[in-house]
Amino acid sequence: MTSTVVTNIRTLVTNDPALGEGGPLGLVHDAAVVLDGDRVAWVGPAAEAPAADSAHDAEGRAAVPGFVDSHSHLLFGGDRTAEFNARMSGRPYTAGGIRTTVAATREASDDELGRNLTRFLDEARRQGTTTMETKSGYGLTPEQESRALRVAAEQTDEVTYMGAHIVAPEYADDPAAYVDLVTGPMLDACAPYARWVDVFCEKGAFDGDQARAVLTAGRAKGLIPRIHANQLSHGPGVQLAVELGAASADHCTHLTDADVDALAHADGTVATLLPGCEFSTRAVYPDARRLLDAGATVALSTDCNPGSSFTSSMPFCVAIAVREMGMTPDEAVWSATAGGARALRRDDIGRLSPGARADLVLMDAPSHVHLAYRPGVPLTSRVWHRGRPAGA
Amino acid sequence: MTSTVVTNIRTLVTNDPALGEGGPLGLVHDAAVVLDGDRVAWVGPAAEAPAADSAHDAEGRAAVPGFVDSHSHLLFGGDRTAEFNARMSGRPYTAGGIRTTVAATREASDDELGRNLTRFLDEARRQGTTTMETKSGYGLTPEQESRALRVAAEQTDEVTYMGAHIVAPEYADDPAAYVDLVTGPMLDACAPYARWVDVFCEKGAFDGDQARAVLTAGRAKGLIPRIHANQLSHGPGVQLAVELGAASADHCTHLTDADVDALAHADGTVATLLPGCEFSTRAVYPDARRLLDAGATVALSTDCNPGSSFTSSMPFCVAIAVREMGMTPDEAVWSATAGGARALRRDDIGRLSPGARADLVLMDAPSHVHLAYRPGVPLTSRVWHRGRPAGA
Ligand SMILES: [Zn+2]
Ligand SMILES: [Zn+2]
Repeated sequence: MTSTVVTNIRTLVTNDPALGEGGPLGLVHDAAVVLDGDRVAWVGPAAEAPAADSAHDAEGRAAVPGFVDSHSHLLFGGDRTAEFNARMSGRPYTAGGIRTTVAATREASDDELGRNLTRFLDEARRQGTTTMETKSGYGLTPEQESRALRVAAEQTDEVTYMGAHIVAPEYADDPAAYVDLVTGPMLDACAPYARWVDVFCEKGAFDGDQARAVLTAGRAKGLIPRIHANQLSHGPGVQLAVELGAASADHCTHLTDADVDALAHADGTVATLLPGCEFSTRAVYPDARRLLDAGATVALSTDCNPGSSFTSSMPFCVAIAVREMGMTPDEAVWSATAGGARALRRDDIGRLSPGARADLVLMDAPSHVHLAYRPGVPLTSRVWHRGRPAGA
Repeated sequence: MTSTVVTNIRTLVTNDPALGEGGPLGLVHDAAVVLDGDRVAWVGPAAEAPAADSAHDAEGRAAVPGFVDSHSHLLFGGDRTAEFNARMSGRPYTAGGIRTTVAATREASDDELGRNLTRFLDEARRQGTTTMETKSGYGLTPEQESRALRVAAEQTDEVTYMGAHIVAPEYADDPAAYVDLVTGPMLDACAPYARWVDVFCEKGAFDGDQARAVLTAGRAKGLIPRIHANQLSHGPGVQLAVELGAASADHCTHLTDADVDALAHADGTVATLLPGCEFSTRAVYPDARRLLDAGATVALSTDCNPGSSFTSSMPFCVAIAVREMGMTPDEAVWSATAGGARALRRDDIGRLSPGARADLVLMDAPSHVHLAYRPGVPLTSRVWHRGRPAGA
């Protein structure tokens, strides 16, 4: 193991309030970070930095913890360009939807699924993402779901079983039987590869009782619940998430006061907001300000998927959250790093303080505020992932 | 001079309707382009491509003409991070505004201004921009404005004299005297370095009569008018642009039916929309759909500047135009390429057809639609600028 001191950092976001100023961000100015093996060994003023085996001059750049993208759907075949183009051009498009992706995913080989995933993980890493959760949900048979999760588990340790994404086309007339499959043989086949269980609780997908059945069955097999909740309409998803102690309620676009209150007083249930989805479907954005003011913990994530949100860019999500969702730049950066870590119940990532995993992003900018100030501009200068320069 | 055939292009945007399908975009599928020296020599189906000195396999990527960014303000010192952060965080911020940038620009050496400009032109080129107009307007004295334009002319051939950006602080009590300066000694000092003359026609800046004086004086010195018009409120700017035969009316956010009608029937006056500005100031977006439906020619541009729009990303502007301004992906891509060329009265750029300048962008995507479908994701794979691979 060798150590590296990254020095001459103009603005360092530690996400450890004890280490610096600026509240939760724990900002240190004119800072240095020592990476030792795959861990952060030291953080502080550059003038006080200890020696290390090698040194990297950040030349006044800002540094942030690697982004933690806690919600994506990257195990798919095909794409949906024509459908997106039609929607945004005001043209009718009758074929398609998620079933297009299910059909293409079932056709794809393991190798194709794996290469696709690698491509998106690399693409995200070039934009500063060093942890990325991903889900099944385009296979919808025990064989298809489990092989997708097996492929995922080879590339990321944040893997979510989501057989309950939609009712499989073969079960359109008997959704109860599909829930039995998802909570029975499909779960048995998938649990060995997954850490999480997820369900799309929404009109037209799975109702509150079905969602409860899916999550409790997963929990009985050792998986931790998370839930697609209140995306398209009001519903029971958020309250169910809090009741079951889910790690995250995702989307949270349509919330009653009681939903907000439940999230504000939840024990470990994060509200994960996915602005790429509203961006690409021209839907109304979730109100992050309302959640933050109530005291809820908010994470930002891409929801990267070919249907409703085909961005892999956490900086883009930060910029949209500031423009559209009432977040300050500081809050949005926290939610894209520490917030994502909370949503994945991880305390080793999403921060840059001693003992954390050595996931560090140097930005081509003097401040983390530039993630919102310079929307769309690729600002990733260099990424260390588990202590190693990405690409090296 | 050597020639290169770029082959295996899945989707090629030529912007020449005679060359392909898809209306104005002139799409060619499974295409090749031959670059000879700094020009496009041949365009057509890959299977029919002639031989060239070298070949580049696009591996199924899409190709578009280099973006033409016809409106930016890159001759400045300092930045305005604190002001942006305060605005987006709901905190008061009394100092600052454009005068902060004027003070910092006056302090900057020629070398600093030049290096700053180089940095932004390089950053934009990495995002596919191969032509970038830029303006003076942060110096506001004959010496300062002319030295800024001299610096600019060394790096781009689209240089705009904009002494009439705001009334210089020294003339706050006598704006008429400032207009005399702008139309007299300052113009004399600046005209040798510029192709265009521009003015900010708005309440609090320059009124219709003052704007007319600035543009007609510039025209008498051989400069072609363009105008910041109808950004913050209704006003005479758009009508003045059409009356004077300006190349472009920029912003066009607040338009009456008469303004739209004037643009629709204008002889060579383009409506240039700058969505980065509305994004970063949380202002209402211009209605591109209304302009397009009326028959106006629309360009998209970044307005890159440290105060109101610090993006240099044309792909970001395309994505926002589709999400927020009623443009189809095809229309937005046309406006970011051919539209910008029209706004700069250039017929050698903004298209990929024989005789055009060899400015070609290969995208990490199979289609130009992905510029809107994959917001925020850096999709630039490789850029040829004047026939040379950028960076080479
Ligand atoms: Zn999702
Ligand atoms: Zn401007």
